[in-house]
Amino acid sequence: MNDFTYYTPTKYVFGRGVESKAGELSSSIGLKKVLLVYGGGSVVRSGLLDRVKESLTASNVDFLEFGGIQPNPTDDRVYEGIEICRRENVDGMLAVGGGSVIDTAKAIALGVPYEGDFWDFYAGKLKAETALPVGVVLTIPAAGSEGSGNSVITKLDGLHKISLRTESALRPKFALMNPELTFTLPPYQTASGIADMMVHILERYFTNTPDVEITDRVAEGVLKAIIEEAPKVMANPTDYQSRANIMWSGTLAHNGICGTGRAEDWVSHAMEHEISAVYGVTHGAGLAVVVPAWMTFMARNHPFKIAQFGRRVFDVKAADDKLAATEGIEALKAFWGSLGLPVTFAGLGIEAPDIDLLVSKLHENKGEVIGGYYRLNRSDTEIIYRLMM
Amino acid sequence: MNDFTYYTPTKYVFGRGVESKAGELSSSIGLKKVLLVYGGGSVVRSGLLDRVKESLTASNVDFLEFGGIQPNPTDDRVYEGIEICRRENVDGMLAVGGGSVIDTAKAIALGVPYEGDFWDFYAGKLKAETALPVGVVLTIPAAGSEGSGNSVITKLDGLHKISLRTESALRPKFALMNPELTFTLPPYQTASGIADMMVHILERYFTNTPDVEITDRVAEGVLKAIIEEAPKVMANPTDYQSRANIMWSGTLAHNGICGTGRAEDWVSHAMEHEISAVYGVTHGAGLAVVVPAWMTFMARNHPFKIAQFGRRVFDVKAADDKLAATEGIEALKAFWGSLGLPVTFAGLGIEAPDIDLLVSKLHENKGEVIGGYYRLNRSDTEIIYRLMM
Repeated sequence: MNDFTYYTPTKYVFGRGVESKAGELSSSIGLKKVLLVYGGGSVVRSGLLDRVKESLTASNVDFLEFGGIQPNPTDDRVYEGIEICRRENVDGMLAVGGGSVIDTAKAIALGVPYEGDFWDFYAGKLKAETALPVGVVLTIPAAGSEGSGNSVITKLDGLHKISLRTESALRPKFALMNPELTFTLPPYQTASGIADMMVHILERYFTNTPDVEITDRVAEGVLKAIIEEAPKVMANPTDYQSRANIMWSGTLAHNGICGTGRAEDWVSHAMEHEISAVYGVTHGAGLAVVVPAWMTFMARNHPFKIAQFGRRVFDVKAADDKLAATEGIEALKAFWGSLGLPVTFAGLGIEAPDIDLLVSKLHENKGEVIGGYYRLNRSDTEIIYRLMM
Repeated sequence: MNDFTYYTPTKYVFGRGVESKAGELSSSIGLKKVLLVYGGGSVVRSGLLDRVKESLTASNVDFLEFGGIQPNPTDDRVYEGIEICRRENVDGMLAVGGGSVIDTAKAIALGVPYEGDFWDFYAGKLKAETALPVGVVLTIPAAGSEGSGNSVITKLDGLHKISLRTESALRPKFALMNPELTFTLPPYQTASGIADMMVHILERYFTNTPDVEITDRVAEGVLKAIIEEAPKVMANPTDYQSRANIMWSGTLAHNGICGTGRAEDWVSHAMEHEISAVYGVTHGAGLAVVVPAWMTFMARNHPFKIAQFGRRVFDVKAADDKLAATEGIEALKAFWGSLGLPVTFAGLGIEAPDIDLLVSKLHENKGEVIGGYYRLNRSDTEIIYRLMM
């Protein structure tokens, strides 16, 4: 087990109707005027935005609306938000939505008190330590941004998609989590979110750090819960209980509890980001294609933790590590397939992927040799991309 | 799953030598003068206290020493501490020790800013919302107080042992956790701590709240990690890695992550508290006697969750619930026995327990009908106490 610091000062308020506490919680952390960040029409049509606004008004918290945040959020909206906040003396963010909305709110929160270009933090030029407070009303269980210190923003100039990770500066002050708000998510988005949260765990699980039994077991536990609950959500989208289990699993998958004391990987995310950038696929669905291919490569070259995954998560019995790994991968693909997720390029609708381009962009962005659990050069990543065919 | 609020704003700093950060962390939360609370001679003899004091001095944090806290800490020391803090303008606590030391520091922290008697909070007369900041250097993984919002204090007048639970007011601001500090714990204390943390999970695990798969799986995961690591710690007390796994497990067992969204029980703790009060046994060892007896009663009367425990934690195969429950209990007893823990009154050194007295004190303190997973009257608790013979 490696040394670690774990600090998650997010207050989670979970249950039916908790969006009505948005005002009370904003006020409790001293906010007087928030930027209300949201995405497309669904939060408006469903009446959620109105309920949140009523709650703010009832608690005398002023607000400005900042809607229309798109998936794979971009820096232009961040600059715009920062300018509004400064001009209007906004003192905090309230994000109503999923990962893209929350990540945009976090980026604005970081940029407002900083005199330079907010992108400096994403470019790794300096460490993020101060930000305006961010509150969340979560509508999509997937990205885990409601509990993480992370934010992913794409710079339009060059389409650089960068994930910024902070220890605590960007962790939301509160997250209001009502599983009912996820009832109307389309099946494909629900399933993609499930893949996303599972991969947040797997990127931490596949490690060479020895003696991390406690986080291994917690990670396996969250994976098993997701595997148990996901088919129920798909079969009955308005089943509160399975929605609740999935929603809380998505938070635990990414708030760090599955990653304490261990090296993490995140190379599958990097490989998927290139696919998203070129072909515009849904992130979670892209991960469902990348991860089994990456695991297959590992089953051949470095199977031990993949085998443990097969045995402990899917109850594979094989004694041989390569076989146990392979059977585990097949079980994972079958599971994701059962949710309607693709597990190949063709399934993503990409009939003739430009693998040379993907490999070249990947290493250009991330370096010649990448990956934590196993170091991958260009010929390795080419093999992995080809395994997605 | 029930609605819940989960808020754990404790910064955990985990690894070798982290006690040297006591000053830096105290200073980072604005402390100028702390009450340094500790127990017996081991923290002095080992040099730990000196290292902590050096760290405080190096960060210009003044301190007053307040040592000699005993196991099952009492209100007299709390009153004494409160008086010192007020007189000397202490602005925070630094607890160096295990549960008794931390719980005393928490009680003092609660009492200083309150004009009335600090016991009002423990007596349930009012809700704890404000306290001085508490920092921790943990030396005993067991009580989980380094991450919990709880504090257990015994009132000398009447020997009332009361556990106060707060949502966040009493959660430490930081916890410094160096597994090396636990190398010198005597085997019996190590084993008792392991039983204590396992029971913190079980009191949450045995619930009738339906649809809590995510917390069931996390709880089972932490239990499995403890069961895997505990024999290593007993065999080799200076094995850093297994000590680290056990130490972090003790925190996760009681910081609430295993309990979100579910009714909890805590009747085994109540039954053990009476044994401790009358016979002065070690809390964790007492729990190792109480819990299998309570589970045996449940195997007969309400087996479903006990059976799930047997199947998922100890891989029991029996299809029948009562049988699976019974086999799980036998496995748990064998496991605790293998650590050198007692699982009967005789094992605790109590040859002729006064069961009438225990039953009568229990119901006098807790009410005529007690328990969450199954409601127990006097004749039920008498049966359970007799099952400990």
